[in-house]
Parts: sequence; structure tokens; C-alpha cells
Amino acid sequence: MTAPIRVSVTGAAGNIGYALLFRLASGDCYGKNQPIILQLLEIAPGMKALEGVVMELLDSAFPLLHGVEISDDANKAFAGVNQAFLVGSRPRTKDMNRADLISANGPIFTGQGKALNDNAASDVRALVVGNPCNTNALIAAHSAPDIPKDRFHAMTRLDENRAKAQLAKKLGALPGEVARVGIWGNHSDTMFPDYANATVRGKAVTEQVGEEWLQGEFLKTVATRGKAIIEARGASSAASAASAAIDHMATLWHGNAPGDFTSMGVWSNGEYGVPKGLIFSYPVTSGGGNFNIVPGLEHGEFAKARIAATTAELLSERETVKDLLK
Amino acid sequence: MTAPIRVSVTGAAGNIGYALLFRLASGDCYGKNQPIILQLLEIAPGMKALEGVVMELLDSAFPLLHGVEISDDANKAFAGVNQAFLVGSRPRTKDMNRADLISANGPIFTGQGKALNDNAASDVRALVVGNPCNTNALIAAHSAPDIPKDRFHAMTRLDENRAKAQLAKKLGALPGEVARVGIWGNHSDTMFPDYANATVRGKAVTEQVGEEWLQGEFLKTVATRGKAIIEARGASSAASAASAAIDHMATLWHGNAPGDFTSMGVWSNGEYGVPKGLIFSYPVTSGGGNFNIVPGLEHGEFAKARIAATTAELLSERETVKDLLK
Repeated sequence: MTAPIRVSVTGAAGNIGYALLFRLASGDCYGKNQPIILQLLEIAPGMKALEGVVMELLDSAFPLLHGVEISDDANKAFAGVNQAFLVGSRPRTKDMNRADLISANGPIFTGQGKALNDNAASDVRALVVGNPCNTNALIAAHSAPDIPKDRFHAMTRLDENRAKAQLAKKLGALPGEVARVGIWGNHSDTMFPDYANATVRGKAVTEQVGEEWLQGEFLKTVATRGKAIIEARGASSAASAASAAIDHMATLWHGNAPGDFTSMGVWSNGEYGVPKGLIFSYPVTSGGGNFNIVPGLEHGEFAKARIAATTAELLSERETVKDLLK
Repeated sequence: MTAPIRVSVTGAAGNIGYALLFRLASGDCYGKNQPIILQLLEIAPGMKALEGVVMELLDSAFPLLHGVEISDDANKAFAGVNQAFLVGSRPRTKDMNRADLISANGPIFTGQGKALNDNAASDVRALVVGNPCNTNALIAAHSAPDIPKDRFHAMTRLDENRAKAQLAKKLGALPGEVARVGIWGNHSDTMFPDYANATVRGKAVTEQVGEEWLQGEFLKTVATRGKAIIEARGASSAASAASAAIDHMATLWHGNAPGDFTSMGVWSNGEYGVPKGLIFSYPVTSGGGNFNIVPGLEHGEFAKARIAATTAELLSERETVKDLLK
């Protein structure tokens, strides 16, 4: 039997956590032959609910779940961790603008970055799901000087999956028949789902749908999808966010489908003219815990303008938290 | 590519439904090569929330999810269905005793049984999760004269999984190392988790733990687990119930682990002296959609008394709904 890996989830008693944990324990992320030990972090007021979640995890008798540990101390939750899902973050309240939200989350991710730095396994990979995830990941990466910067990721896979779903719907295809949709930049309204290289059933999307729909309804639907779900469900996306987190880490672990790429928010080293040291979503190929930014993709004027806008937003967010970046 | 199967879930916008749908769509139940079409049923007031759930299902871009249909009409939701998860039921309100609850659920399951009878595929299997699940399954089976009675099941896998978890915890084992725990009778307080044939790491449980703990704390913990989870989480078991439903139908489909058995609430033909025509949980081996009640298990005096009690309860429930059983 393969040795278990240690998987941390923060905000584990929250709605995304609840959707995520059972899929992790069932083997959906790392495969049916890879046991895991879950190490769950919550803030103190969430610990009692988390104990209930742990009871349910045990009550599912998952053969791959070799242990569950809980703590409200990141140093304990991240001890020896190989894979970290940083889901918990301070939610936006009514009186907060995005800058306030970014500032409120800073201390959480300086603390978690340091705790990962001091306690995680040497092969650790961390995916930030909690928003604003790009800048939270940037703060965590800066707070973990001993961990390579390319280990801290922000999740834009939900945007990618949403874009694939819309293209599939438009063309009467299955989501598995849609490939090479790239997500560029920040996980926010400025995120750019690039359809220029996308294919449906192996044929370019741009040969099958007009540019007007792609630049209009398509982009708008993907960008406002979170709000539409809140309106319908009366609750924010939880299971689909958890599913995207599984997809991100599974793709990093097992590799992407041949001929396809995926998108991850990763440390920029200046690729595609993006300033160095931003956590920026790029199309990547990946596997074995590593990734490569897809080279040589071309951008028209529309794409260039959208990428410039999302880059500007990330620079502004970085400026907001500059005191936390050492 | 294998042709998709049609899978219905009722109460699809509820908490168990929300936990169940994403695991079904990911391939957790029928395997990574079996596409599915989800056909979801809700009552009219739940349809808007269900639309939000469908958005999230599509947004997860599951390669195996070949379609999602929704309806508040069981005849539509069960059209051509191969596998039905009957999750929705009338919950118990403050002023209801168990008999009231049973009566309130009757019309739901007469309607759904008839709708399955008139619309389902010829190979349909139905698992009732909504409580009181044994008697709900009995009503549905009676309302579907053209469907073989052994196709209607009640879920006691959650009890089995909970029992395995407690034995694993007690003996410092993994849940996958616990086998042959049988659940007998009704999914209620009278359910009997039979440890007499149970093994942990291949060795009889009764050689490793005293009978006092087994007859006392073990049975009590398993029987009161649902309440303990509500107290901790502030919400009833959803993900673990969904996980048990997956396990039940996956075991029926793929087969049980060699040397082990599982438990299912199934139509009694008098096995082990249980009156005919109750939906009664027995240890079974299964696979390919069929099951066999495990023969030749022996019961001591304690077990006999427990099984007599749960049988009496089921007879009483049947008496309560006798007007619905044609």
C-alpha cells in the first residue's frame, strides 16, 4: 500500500470545505490507490462544527482515509503537510470594498504562509481558494521564504470550468469535448477567459461561434456566474468551487489531458510581459506536482486590453498589501 | 464510450442531494468510464434552488455528466431511469410522532412508486434514503406492481459504515480493515448492528473486544450517532448519508469486497424467520444489480431479541400504512 500523504484544508467546517472533504477522502483527487491523512484547520468558533464534520468523515468509512486531525493552530494543521487547500478567508461584509477585503485577509495569509514555511513537508503545494485568492497566495508566498514561489497557487479553475460549460452549452457539446480555454490574470471580474485557442470537438471555437457572442454574452456569463448562482440557490457556489479545487490539484498531481491545457494562478517571472512577482493565472501544462506555462500563445488587441486590465488590478492589489510583502 | 445511464435523485435541492449529486457526476458511484444523465426531482418550491444546483453541476465540467434534467413531476423525472435515489421525504416536525411521520410520507411514495412503475427502464433499481426509509420503500414497491419487489431498497449502509467506524476506532484499525458487520431490520433506533461475524484485520471482533462494550457503548453510539452529529454540526448528517447511498448503489453495481458482505433493506421472503413482505435489512452479497441474502448466519439470544424487536416495529409500521399497500 502506498504511504498516505498529508492534506490540509483550512476553513474546513465551511460550505466549500464540507463539499471538498468527502471528495478528497473518496479518492477523487489523488486516485483510488493513494491514502490520505486530513489535517483540518478552523478558527476557534468553528471547532465544534468541525468535530461534527469529522464524525461524518469517519462515518463514511472511506478506505483511503487513514486519519483526520483538527486544530485551530496553523502550525499543527500544516505539520508535515504535502498538499494544502487554503479555503478559509475573511468574507466580504456589507461595508467593505475590495481593498478593505484584501487588507482584512492579509494577516490570515501571512500567518498561514509562515506556518507552511515552518511546518510543511519539503514537497508541499498550496492552493489558495479563499478570496481574493491571487493576492492571498502572493502574501502567503512572501511569508514563506524557504518554500519555492512556484508552490503557491491561486484557483482559477472554477472560471475555466464555467467557461467550458458555456461553450459546451452553446455548441451542444459535452464539457469533456471542450479544450484549451485559458484563464488569464486575477480571479475577479477582470479575469479573462481566452477563447482564441479553445476547441470544441477538436475544431476552433472561433470557427463555430461569432466573436460578438464570445466577447459579449460568453464573457459576461462567466464573469457574473457566481452572482447568478447566489440568486438561484440562495447560497454561494460551494460544491462547484470544491470541484474546481479538486480538479486543480488533481491536474497538478496526475497531469492534464493530452492536447489540452489548464489554468492556474502562479508566480509570474515575466512571462507574456506580465510584471514579475504577481500571482497571475496562465494556461499551463502540468503533472507530477509541477507545471509549465504554455509558451507562444498569441493575443489579439481585444485580449491584450483585457490582460492589461487584469494585470493593472493585480498591481493595485499588490500595492494595497505591500507592507506584508517582505 | 459506454452509453450513459439515467440516474434520478429526488429531493435534489436538499442537503443530502447537494452532497450526492457531485459525487455521482464525478464517477464515484458507477466508475470513471460510465457516463450518466441526471434526472432531478424537487417539489415546486424547491425548483429555483435546484436550478442553481444545476448551474453548479454544469460549472463543474464533469466529463461523465452527459445531461441534467429537472422536473417537479415524478413521471418526467423517472422517464427511462435506471438508478433511482429516493432521497426526498417529508421531515418530521415538532408535533409529529413516528406514526404521523409514516402517514405523512405515504402519498409521496405511492406516487413515486407508481411513477417508477409507469416510466422507469426495465432494469431500474431504487434506493430509498428518505425516512422512514424501510416503510417508504415498502409503499413504493406496492405501488409498482410491474417492477420486481427486490428492486426496491432501503438504506442501512449509513448504519453499517457508522458501526465499522466505531469498531475501527476501538481497535486502532482503518475502516477498510473492518468486515462483515451486518445491519438487521429497520433503519431506526431498533436497527441491530450485528458484530457476531465482524472481523477486524481478519480476526473476530468478539475475540478482541468484550461483549459488554459491544452490547453497550458500541450499539448506543451507532444508534444515537445522527443526534450527536446534529448537536455538533448544528445540521443533520448530509455528506455521510450521501456517501452511504453511493456505497449502497456502487456495491450493488460493482459488487462487494471479497470476503466481506454489506447490508441492504430488501424485500423479505421469510429469510431468517422474518415475516414475508417487509423491507428488512439483511447482510447481503451483491453485484451486477442483484443481491443474495447471506445464508447461515447464527444469532445468539441477545441478537434474537434485538431482531425480534426491530421486526415488531416494522410490522407495526406496515399496519400503519396498510391502506396504501395494494
